[in-house]
Amino acid sequence: MKETKEGYPFLMACRRKPTPYTPIWLMRQAGRYMKEYRGLRKKYSFLEMCKSPELVAKVTLLPIEKFKLDAAIIFSDILIPLEPMGVEFEFAKGEGPVFHHPVREMKDVQRLRVIEPEEETSFLMRAIQIVRKELEGKVPLIGFSGAPFTLASYIIEGGHSNNYVLTKGIMYQNRAAWNALMEKISEVLIRYLNAQIRAGVQALQLFDSWAGCLSPADYEEYVLPYSKKVIDGVNKSVPLIHFATSNSTLLELMRRAGGDVIGVDWRVDIGEAWARLGYDVAVQGNLDPVILFGPVSLIEKEVKRILGRVEGRPGHIFNLGHGILPNTPVDHVAALIDAVHQYSSK
Amino acid sequence: MKETKEGYPFLMACRRKPTPYTPIWLMRQAGRYMKEYRGLRKKYSFLEMCKSPELVAKVTLLPIEKFKLDAAIIFSDILIPLEPMGVEFEFAKGEGPVFHHPVREMKDVQRLRVIEPEEETSFLMRAIQIVRKELEGKVPLIGFSGAPFTLASYIIEGGHSNNYVLTKGIMYQNRAAWNALMEKISEVLIRYLNAQIRAGVQALQLFDSWAGCLSPADYEEYVLPYSKKVIDGVNKSVPLIHFATSNSTLLELMRRAGGDVIGVDWRVDIGEAWARLGYDVAVQGNLDPVILFGPVSLIEKEVKRILGRVEGRPGHIFNLGHGILPNTPVDHVAALIDAVHQYSSK
Repeated sequence: MKETKEGYPFLMACRRKPTPYTPIWLMRQAGRYMKEYRGLRKKYSFLEMCKSPELVAKVTLLPIEKFKLDAAIIFSDILIPLEPMGVEFEFAKGEGPVFHHPVREMKDVQRLRVIEPEEETSFLMRAIQIVRKELEGKVPLIGFSGAPFTLASYIIEGGHSNNYVLTKGIMYQNRAAWNALMEKISEVLIRYLNAQIRAGVQALQLFDSWAGCLSPADYEEYVLPYSKKVIDGVNKSVPLIHFATSNSTLLELMRRAGGDVIGVDWRVDIGEAWARLGYDVAVQGNLDPVILFGPVSLIEKEVKRILGRVEGRPGHIFNLGHGILPNTPVDHVAALIDAVHQYSSK
Repeated sequence: MKETKEGYPFLMACRRKPTPYTPIWLMRQAGRYMKEYRGLRKKYSFLEMCKSPELVAKVTLLPIEKFKLDAAIIFSDILIPLEPMGVEFEFAKGEGPVFHHPVREMKDVQRLRVIEPEEETSFLMRAIQIVRKELEGKVPLIGFSGAPFTLASYIIEGGHSNNYVLTKGIMYQNRAAWNALMEKISEVLIRYLNAQIRAGVQALQLFDSWAGCLSPADYEEYVLPYSKKVIDGVNKSVPLIHFATSNSTLLELMRRAGGDVIGVDWRVDIGEAWARLGYDVAVQGNLDPVILFGPVSLIEKEVKRILGRVEGRPGHIFNLGHGILPNTPVDHVAALIDAVHQYSSK
C-alpha cells in the first residue's frame, strides 16, 4: 500500500502509531506456493537464487506485484552469513541444509571468521539497493537474519534437529565454547543487519525459529544475553521485529531481549500475548498458516477473530504465525489480504 | 518404592495427598536407552513385542528392576487400538508408523470399527495381569492410550506430520467427518481404558502428543469436547494423567477437559503452570529430556530448581517433559531418580 501522508502503515504500526487499516505481510511471501517462484527454481538452485542480486530482486518483488501486501521482505535465507564465516553447507535434495563440518568444540569456534558483510555478502546488499529502486516507494522493505541461538543450533547439529541434543550438550557442558560461539555469531549479526540498513532496508526481522525448544530458564541463561546484544547493536533508525515459533512461554523474555515488535505464533491467543507483553511494544501475527488451506469463509472468520482479539489497538501487524506453506492456494492469500484490509478499515 | 501404610507415593501424589518424597517415573522408561531393551529389539519387531503378553511384561519390568522408580507403565504404543479398528499400519524402518489407507472422508470413517478391547487387544490385558502379579505390589502400574486428536492426526496424515495440513483440512472443511471420526475414536478409547482398569492398571495416562500444533481456539472447538468425553467416560477408581507436549497455552483448556494430574512439558515454568492450572489439580513434569545428557551436577541443579518451583506442595509427580531419548546415559537416569528422592525427602 502506498505511503499516506503520515507514512507507511506497516512502519507506523511497528512504532504503534494509528493506521487507517491493519497492515499485513506474510513470512515466506516469496516462496514455493507461487508458480512464478517454482518456475525460477526449475532453472536455478536455491543458493544460486540467494546469491544473484537480480534474482533476489525479482523474487522479492513477485508477491508485491501480485498481492496488496504492506511490506516486501528481501528474498534470502537465515544461513547466508554462515558460509563466509567458514561454515560450509549445501541444501541436500529434500533434506534441508547439511553442514559438512559442524561446530562441536572450542577449536571449531576459533576457526569461524567475523565477516565484512558489505564485501562478503555484497550480493544481498546490492539486491536491497535494486529492490528499493524498483519498489519506487510502493511499500517498505524488510531485511532479516537468524537469531544467535537458531544459527548456533544449525551449525552445531549440522542441519535440522528434533531434540537439539548436541546444541544443548555444548550449552550445558562446554560453557566457554558456547559463549565464544554465541559472541562470534552475535558480532556477525550486528554487522550483517547494520549493513542491510545501510543498503536500504526500512525494517528488520530477527528469526529465532528454533528457540521454542528451550525452557524459559535456559533461554534466559544461555540465549537472551546474545539476542539482546544483537538487538542493542543494531542501528535504531529502523524498527526491529523479534520473532520465534513455539514461543508462547518465552514472550516476556523475548521482550526483555528487545525489539519494537514481538512476533507471536498461532499457538497462543494474540490478545492474551499482548496483555502479557505489555502495550508499549507492537505485536505481529498470528494466523495458523494451515488456515489458508480452508475455505475463504474460514479465513475471513479467523481474520475477524484475530482482529477482535487486538481490539483495534495501534501496533498490530497482521501475519501468519509461521512461514506460508508450499501448497497454499494463491487465491486464498489474496482473500486473506483483502479480509485484513477490509475488516480493519476505520 | 514399596507402599507405605498411607499408600503408594505415586498414587497419593496423583490425589494431591502429602508424600514422604516426590515420586518419579519417566515417559518411555522402558526404551531404547536400555541395553536390555535393545537386545530384545534385535530379536523381535516393535509390534511383535507389543503383542506378546510375556514380552510386554518383561519390558515393562526392565526399568523397575534397574531403578528406584515409583511407578511402572505398561509397555505398549498409542497406535495399538487402531489396528483392530481397521486402520492397518506398519513401522517402516527409521520412519515411524506408516498407514496404508489413511482416513480422509466420511466413508473412511464409516468403515472404522468400534472394538471390543478385552478380545481384540487381549494381549495387552493379559500383559497387565502378568505385570501386576510379577510386581508383587512393589510399585503401581500405569496404563495409557493416545488422546482422540493425536490418534486422529495419525490416521488422517498416514504417519507423522510437520504441519498437520490434512488433519486441520478435515477439521475445518468436513466437520461432519471430523466429528464422526472423533466420536468413534473416543468411544474406542473409553472402552480401551476401562478394559485396562479391569485388567489391573492403577492409574492412566492420556497422551495428546500432537495437540501442541493447535491454536487454543481450535483446541477448544474441535478437540476439547472429545478429550473430555473420554476422560468423563473412564472409571474414576484410578487417577488419570492428562499429558500433551508443547502445550503451555493449552493448560487451562486441558484442565477443563479433565484429569486428576496435568502433564507439563519443559517449555513452561512448572510453578507458573501450576498457578495457572489451580492447586486443586496435581501436576507432572517437567525436566527437559536433554538435561539427562548433561553432567550429574547439572541434573541435580535442575532437580533442585524444579522442586523449588513447586515449593513442596503435595501433588507433584516428577517426570520428564517428554519421553526419554534413545542415547540417554543409564547412570544419569539413576542419578536423576536419586536426586529427586533425596532433595524432596521431608
